[in-house]
Amino acid sequence: MISLQNSRDGLDRLREECGIFGVFDNSDAVALTALGMHALQHRGQEAAGILSYDGTHFKTERRIGLVGDHFSDENTINELSGNMAIGHVRYSTTGETALRNIQPMFAELNNGGFGISHNGNLTNALTLRRKMIESGSIFQSTSDSEVILHLVSRSSRRRLIERFIDALSQIEGAYSLIALTNKKLIGARDPLGIRPLVLGKLDGAFILASETCALDIIGADYVRDIENGEIIIITKTGLESLKPFQTQSARPCIFEYIYFARPDSIVGGKTVYEMRKNMGVQLARESAHDADIVVPVPDSGIPAALGFSQESVIPLELSIVRNHYVGRTFIEPTQKIRQLGVKLKHSVIQSQVAGKRVILVDDSIVRGTTCVKIVKILREAGAREVHLRVSSPPIIYPDFYGIDTPDQSNLLAANYDLEDMRRFINCDTLIFLSLKGLYLAMGCEERNVHKPQFTDHCFTGDYPTSLTDRASGVNAEQISLHFPKTDE
Amino acid sequence: MISLQNSRDGLDRLREECGIFGVFDNSDAVALTALGMHALQHRGQEAAGILSYDGTHFKTERRIGLVGDHFSDENTINELSGNMAIGHVRYSTTGETALRNIQPMFAELNNGGFGISHNGNLTNALTLRRKMIESGSIFQSTSDSEVILHLVSRSSRRRLIERFIDALSQIEGAYSLIALTNKKLIGARDPLGIRPLVLGKLDGAFILASETCALDIIGADYVRDIENGEIIIITKTGLESLKPFQTQSARPCIFEYIYFARPDSIVGGKTVYEMRKNMGVQLARESAHDADIVVPVPDSGIPAALGFSQESVIPLELSIVRNHYVGRTFIEPTQKIRQLGVKLKHSVIQSQVAGKRVILVDDSIVRGTTCVKIVKILREAGAREVHLRVSSPPIIYPDFYGIDTPDQSNLLAANYDLEDMRRFINCDTLIFLSLKGLYLAMGCEERNVHKPQFTDHCFTGDYPTSLTDRASGVNAEQISLHFPKTDE
Amino acid sequence: MISLQNSRDGLDRLREECGIFGVFDNSDAVALTALGMHALQHRGQEAAGILSYDGTHFKTERRIGLVGDHFSDENTINELSGNMAIGHVRYSTTGETALRNIQPMFAELNNGGFGISHNGNLTNALTLRRKMIESGSIFQSTSDSEVILHLVSRSSRRRLIERFIDALSQIEGAYSLIALTNKKLIGARDPLGIRPLVLGKLDGAFILASETCALDIIGADYVRDIENGEIIIITKTGLESLKPFQTQSARPCIFEYIYFARPDSIVGGKTVYEMRKNMGVQLARESAHDADIVVPVPDSGIPAALGFSQESVIPLELSIVRNHYVGRTFIEPTQKIRQLGVKLKHSVIQSQVAGKRVILVDDSIVRGTTCVKIVKILREAGAREVHLRVSSPPIIYPDFYGIDTPDQSNLLAANYDLEDMRRFINCDTLIFLSLKGLYLAMGCEERNVHKPQFTDHCFTGDYPTSLTDRASGVNAEQISLHFPKTDE
Amino acid sequence: MISLQNSRDGLDRLREECGIFGVFDNSDAVALTALGMHALQHRGQEAAGILSYDGTHFKTERRIGLVGDHFSDENTINELSGNMAIGHVRYSTTGETALRNIQPMFAELNNGGFGISHNGNLTNALTLRRKMIESGSIFQSTSDSEVILHLVSRSSRRRLIERFIDALSQIEGAYSLIALTNKKLIGARDPLGIRPLVLGKLDGAFILASETCALDIIGADYVRDIENGEIIIITKTGLESLKPFQTQSARPCIFEYIYFARPDSIVGGKTVYEMRKNMGVQLARESAHDADIVVPVPDSGIPAALGFSQESVIPLELSIVRNHYVGRTFIEPTQKIRQLGVKLKHSVIQSQVAGKRVILVDDSIVRGTTCVKIVKILREAGAREVHLRVSSPPIIYPDFYGIDTPDQSNLLAANYDLEDMRRFINCDTLIFLSLKGLYLAMGCEERNVHKPQFTDHCFTGDYPTSLTDRASGVNAEQISLHFPKTDE
Repeated sequence: MISLQNSRDGLDRLREECGIFGVFDNSDAVALTALGMHALQHRGQEAAGILSYDGTHFKTERRIGLVGDHFSDENTINELSGNMAIGHVRYSTTGETALRNIQPMFAELNNGGFGISHNGNLTNALTLRRKMIESGSIFQSTSDSEVILHLVSRSSRRRLIERFIDALSQIEGAYSLIALTNKKLIGARDPLGIRPLVLGKLDGAFILASETCALDIIGADYVRDIENGEIIIITKTGLESLKPFQTQSARPCIFEYIYFARPDSIVGGKTVYEMRKNMGVQLARESAHDADIVVPVPDSGIPAALGFSQESVIPLELSIVRNHYVGRTFIEPTQKIRQLGVKLKHSVIQSQVAGKRVILVDDSIVRGTTCVKIVKILREAGAREVHLRVSSPPIIYPDFYGIDTPDQSNLLAANYDLEDMRRFINCDTLIFLSLKGLYLAMGCEERNVHKPQFTDHCFTGDYPTSLTDRASGVNAEQISLHFPKTDE
Repeated sequence: MISLQNSRDGLDRLREECGIFGVFDNSDAVALTALGMHALQHRGQEAAGILSYDGTHFKTERRIGLVGDHFSDENTINELSGNMAIGHVRYSTTGETALRNIQPMFAELNNGGFGISHNGNLTNALTLRRKMIESGSIFQSTSDSEVILHLVSRSSRRRLIERFIDALSQIEGAYSLIALTNKKLIGARDPLGIRPLVLGKLDGAFILASETCALDIIGADYVRDIENGEIIIITKTGLESLKPFQTQSARPCIFEYIYFARPDSIVGGKTVYEMRKNMGVQLARESAHDADIVVPVPDSGIPAALGFSQESVIPLELSIVRNHYVGRTFIEPTQKIRQLGVKLKHSVIQSQVAGKRVILVDDSIVRGTTCVKIVKILREAGAREVHLRVSSPPIIYPDFYGIDTPDQSNLLAANYDLEDMRRFINCDTLIFLSLKGLYLAMGCEERNVHKPQFTDHCFTGDYPTSLTDRASGVNAEQISLHFPKTDE
Repeated sequence: MISLQNSRDGLDRLREECGIFGVFDNSDAVALTALGMHALQHRGQEAAGILSYDGTHFKTERRIGLVGDHFSDENTINELSGNMAIGHVRYSTTGETALRNIQPMFAELNNGGFGISHNGNLTNALTLRRKMIESGSIFQSTSDSEVILHLVSRSSRRRLIERFIDALSQIEGAYSLIALTNKKLIGARDPLGIRPLVLGKLDGAFILASETCALDIIGADYVRDIENGEIIIITKTGLESLKPFQTQSARPCIFEYIYFARPDSIVGGKTVYEMRKNMGVQLARESAHDADIVVPVPDSGIPAALGFSQESVIPLELSIVRNHYVGRTFIEPTQKIRQLGVKLKHSVIQSQVAGKRVILVDDSIVRGTTCVKIVKILREAGAREVHLRVSSPPIIYPDFYGIDTPDQSNLLAANYDLEDMRRFINCDTLIFLSLKGLYLAMGCEERNVHKPQFTDHCFTGDYPTSLTDRASGVNAEQISLHFPKTDE
Repeated sequence: MISLQNSRDGLDRLREECGIFGVFDNSDAVALTALGMHALQHRGQEAAGILSYDGTHFKTERRIGLVGDHFSDENTINELSGNMAIGHVRYSTTGETALRNIQPMFAELNNGGFGISHNGNLTNALTLRRKMIESGSIFQSTSDSEVILHLVSRSSRRRLIERFIDALSQIEGAYSLIALTNKKLIGARDPLGIRPLVLGKLDGAFILASETCALDIIGADYVRDIENGEIIIITKTGLESLKPFQTQSARPCIFEYIYFARPDSIVGGKTVYEMRKNMGVQLARESAHDADIVVPVPDSGIPAALGFSQESVIPLELSIVRNHYVGRTFIEPTQKIRQLGVKLKHSVIQSQVAGKRVILVDDSIVRGTTCVKIVKILREAGAREVHLRVSSPPIIYPDFYGIDTPDQSNLLAANYDLEDMRRFINCDTLIFLSLKGLYLAMGCEERNVHKPQFTDHCFTGDYPTSLTDRASGVNAEQISLHFPKTDE
């Protein structure tokens, strides 16, 4: 899900908006959910929530902060009791971090309670929202995910599953969903399978999660990926799979492999770490250069740098140190201090780079500000040459499927040509992985132009779904104007 | 408004559920609202909320706790900026004190935002709620007041005022309402005027408030009471009054005079303090007894005791001291300590009562537990005789209009006859003010049985409206079952 | 104890600085202490602390806020376990409310732990502090009470009691002390008995407390007052009384009767409520005036007003209403709002005073600002005449014994003569109780000028002890300059 | 400094107890201190404190939590104003995390305030503490560092520097100290220079810090290391160096290089990252084994693994992923969950290790529990062989100089021989770096047995100073018994 606010333009990172998790029929359901969410913490660090059902009551706890901060004590786990639970983590924002936007979202339907966790972003949410408000619905959040609740609530069908399918048939965009009723755990993935969702099993209990790393943490077995367009219904009597919509080829988001998913996760049958190493290997093939050391931008650039180093036989050095205590709170007490910039986060081991020709490897370039700073501190530390290698193609187009990209005007590659970028970053040479190389690294012979194996719209502008809200000019600003700001 | 939870059965007090306040077109609107709510704090100490409109955005802050705890600092006031604001205070509960139930409540309608503060209780809210959920509405709270928002939201009328009237025409029970849109401040009082609502003016700005004490605190002039069945619309161009419903005689709740309203407020043209003194005077006339001193149960019994003392010419002594630091947090750390009971709240000045014949005056008896304890400590302090006089009739019936009464099985007078009550309380004599005496004290010649001047259902069982939810057996438990418990 | 900061000059109230409490040998010692402190809450609302001993460890909890806010839950009570405990409440300040100044204070001596609760103020604390710092002691607070800990710690005597007596022999001023070791509970009162201290008993366990109301709340029996200059040592084997210093006549502070003590407490054998009524009676005798009603400034003026009314046979009316929800947090969000002033705290019942001649009774006048505001609102409500009667003499001199008086330059009566005061307050007539009348009300035939029965220095300037710090010009500012400010 | 509590026996990590920082004469002194402490966060994550001097007042803020949590907002920085400041970070404990133990510690001396930040641990602190308590000092904490304050306070010398030297002459053990007065910033390092301390300069302002990484973060220049036994006094007129004690050879703690210091710091002229790589290189030379991949235990094992890989020409793979969101709060909600163990922190990339012969590299073994778990998950992931290589010698002896080691009975190598350890860990082979190899990696030809270049007591038992407290059998338990537990 994505909030109705603008991207936070200050950050030089793409950000996934969510991770989701659900367990059915396990006496430790809440604790397992907390652990699963903890393993998915990299997908969202702003807020976390759990909804559980104890056989009589639904219970919920939704908090701003990390999973470990609010869902690690026995009290919270015990109060959120039950054998069924779903959870959600979402990303850090400043504006709309209201409690009301934290998932799972819940509606009391006439035949019982219904809650959802949503990863992805709907491209016709604002249009649907406007229509439903016009006909009497009251929205309690500024989140696109609430639209799904209202569509279910308003469906004229009788059975819940029919209502759920009815709702999904009206939405457009990316969604991996986990829903909870008093009898069922439901998983669903959009027709293209843009966001990931896997099925696992622990002691007979079914589990749904964004990534396999959330199965590993609790020792659950990986069963399979939920397929694109598939709905999985888990009840006491077992698991049922529906495919109510017209079949399409899957087109998962390639950015999960480049940046979002955890390296130890297996997404679509491929180990993420290996794909990243492959990208580094491929990058080395495409962009070899004489140098003394290969240095990754930590932490996300490390696997590609390792691949680059092994392929190029230039030694790897971890000469840039990242301060892990930054993270949530960034120290910038005064204007003067703010100018110190990236040093808060990265520092260089001077003796490693002084006088050296450095190949610097990063996984992607968004605004370019991080690269600028890192090249600067490398040069200050005495690096003789800095050759920047990027293990993905230039990002030219914004995402509308759950990745928080800056406005196009802030995407470096959307505004500069290669030489201008090199000059902006002040590196000696700059080479991006080619689109073809990316597909090669992913194990494809080439990008199938008629039916691309992945959605790669940030590089190509080839959006896999309609963009109704965008086409009709509805935007979040117009709507949120009516909604009270709150300190909550 | 009343929450969907049971009454909290441990307390020996009737509790009003709310106080409401609104200001239109004053640059200090938010601060004035905070002050007005502070003056209305006696009507609700659980939680407080403000909704303001700054010309572009609605803003809201809703907090558990006293007004003074959360709305007294400049930051909060300044963030909640704007020239228009409404506020709400509600009573202390334990179960459903979720943030979601704190008012003002807000809905984003297709023609803009709409918020309400509600005092009173609807007697068909659960029935309406059930129907609307069946046809696709999603409720975000367990409060009856939210029903009004949904009725407005779903109305097929076009103009907001028409939609508001449409909504009011469907609800039943007691309501004083203050609503805020981006252009209007609206006040409304139910057809019988059960709960109070007054209009004031400060420097040209109109003000709506539950009681005149909220006008006094900010130096505003009292203009008049909103009439029963009246809707007041305040806009830039002035004030408009509508009476869209069939005219009825007013029938305000007599308990405002007996217990709820602040003594310095003028309700329906009558100063509350004087009515209470009158009740004491009348009680003395009906129940004279030889004694040495008249002692009130503080603080609420003081005006009646003063009237009793003046009429009976028996000297008043304030021999019972109340600890004002109790209040929100009651010290009961261990079981042993719990047995110490009322001493936490009341203590006796022994030298005043030792050997004396005491006339003890209280304003009402609910469960009787307070009286039991106070008679006990008076006797332990050496009182020779204790004659309990109560300045209102016996409470036999529960309220459904916004007063938090215990179950009928816990109302002392509903279960015991006079002599049994006397024995239970262990006083020497026990006399209640007669119903006739109550009306005399209020300045009426007698109770008009065909068209009672007040609603006095707690004494008479004569409920002034239909009780649809009760008649159809819908109850809150059934519904809240579906709703997630939360720690928020 | 008094902190090293200036008086907070904004308030028009004298403020006692502390209440103290201790229990020996009761399995509920901590809970009883919490309750006793709650009963003594009127003596200090800033902060509260408890020190207990569980047979092996001392435990302590010291918190800013009311007793009920921090010491009412089972967790805190249970963690502070033990059969012996002492407690302390202190007044609300803004500047030096650091945790480090909250009592009980504790020192680890070579023969075990030692903690104290102190009510009163030492007049040579700064002088002693300076000397001890010069010779190597490190102070951990800015409180005068810590001086006692250091004197005990540095004493060359061997046994703890000898060290304690050694310490007391060096201090000057007012102190009621309760000390706790791992074997003893100790009570001590300064040679003049300026601050109160009583002994009680509950189920065989001895109790020490500032006032009898703290015995009443837990159902303990009052045994006797600790005498001036007496040290009481309570151990497993019983109670021992020492009088190690030269005998003097007692000279308790008369302000305990006028304002500080709770009306239901018995101080020095006299019920406080009755003394206050007596002062009102005597005041009526000295200052009769034709009028329609007698109106107290609530709450502290009520007993005197009752006495005045009974003596003068002018009816009492409680026409001024006080908002009890003020208290800790005062709403003053904006400058404009600040001008609304006393209305936040007091309002008038207009119908009671309009056209009336009012005798307004207050217990004392400090700066006079409250009177000014109350006379103003009485006149605005239509009072025809306002005759102010004060049930104590003019306050002309500051206190140095634990009462927080403003600088002399802010004491109304120290700067204005009677007629100027009347004009400042804008009342029709103004009469204070005479010093002689005050002693008559207290049951004395007259003030014994050679050996006054009470210390009445605020009225007379007759300070009962040396004022070493003042004489030597040491002041708190000089010292606190070295001490780190803190947010704690 | 080390607290008087036992080591927390549950953790399988050595823990440095502190990082210290100080700035003299810079208008951003407080912000720079916060940043420096942030860079030193790896040296202590429990609590942080700053003491500043603004020309008139000392100010202090001491908080439990990370630097970024409490010292990153402008308010705190601005309230702690001044041109001079010192800071301190300390490690996470559970027992004695009282506010009173957080540094900087402060004393008001007769000639002004005096504060210190201490890294290290005194080996005669308890003995000195006992003596000073016997002669009248009152301790406010259970920290050994407070002893220094009291020694300064009690010194009979006149000038502060003389008193400081007097104090240092009496203490024994490890200390790097930064002290602040109203005129001076002072740095001191114990006669052996066990803990690190460096001098830096920024825009003419002198800076003292535990490590160079704290200089780098603020862009300060590294000037030099403070020498063993040196006292540096920084005033307006410049820098003065004293060496008041008998000269000894330096003997810095070798564990700074193995584990504690940040890899980018230069300690004693040696880049830590390179020393760690060297240890890996040397380890490869000593313990070559046929294998497919070299895998580090992240994050601390990475540099050694890189060295091992480069030397052995076996490819490095980062096959173990560490969850960085663990850290402060560890999720262990239920007993069942607790058994999931290390997976919370580490997970394996299965495709990388399945069927492989793995050389696993860690920097040290304390209890061995982490290794056991990691070997287990490697085997579960299908590793064919696991050869554990440790880049330091076996830890056999506890530390007394500021490293939090478990009891000797919990040190794996102190209780098991090599083969038993191998069996316990369940690896195929296990080899530690030799002591000789460690010195070679550090650039020494060999360990000088008569005058070792480093203190390596954890490996050799060769403690460089007397251990007075230990010899005399004084222990922390005895003393802390007298001290109140607190929740603060």
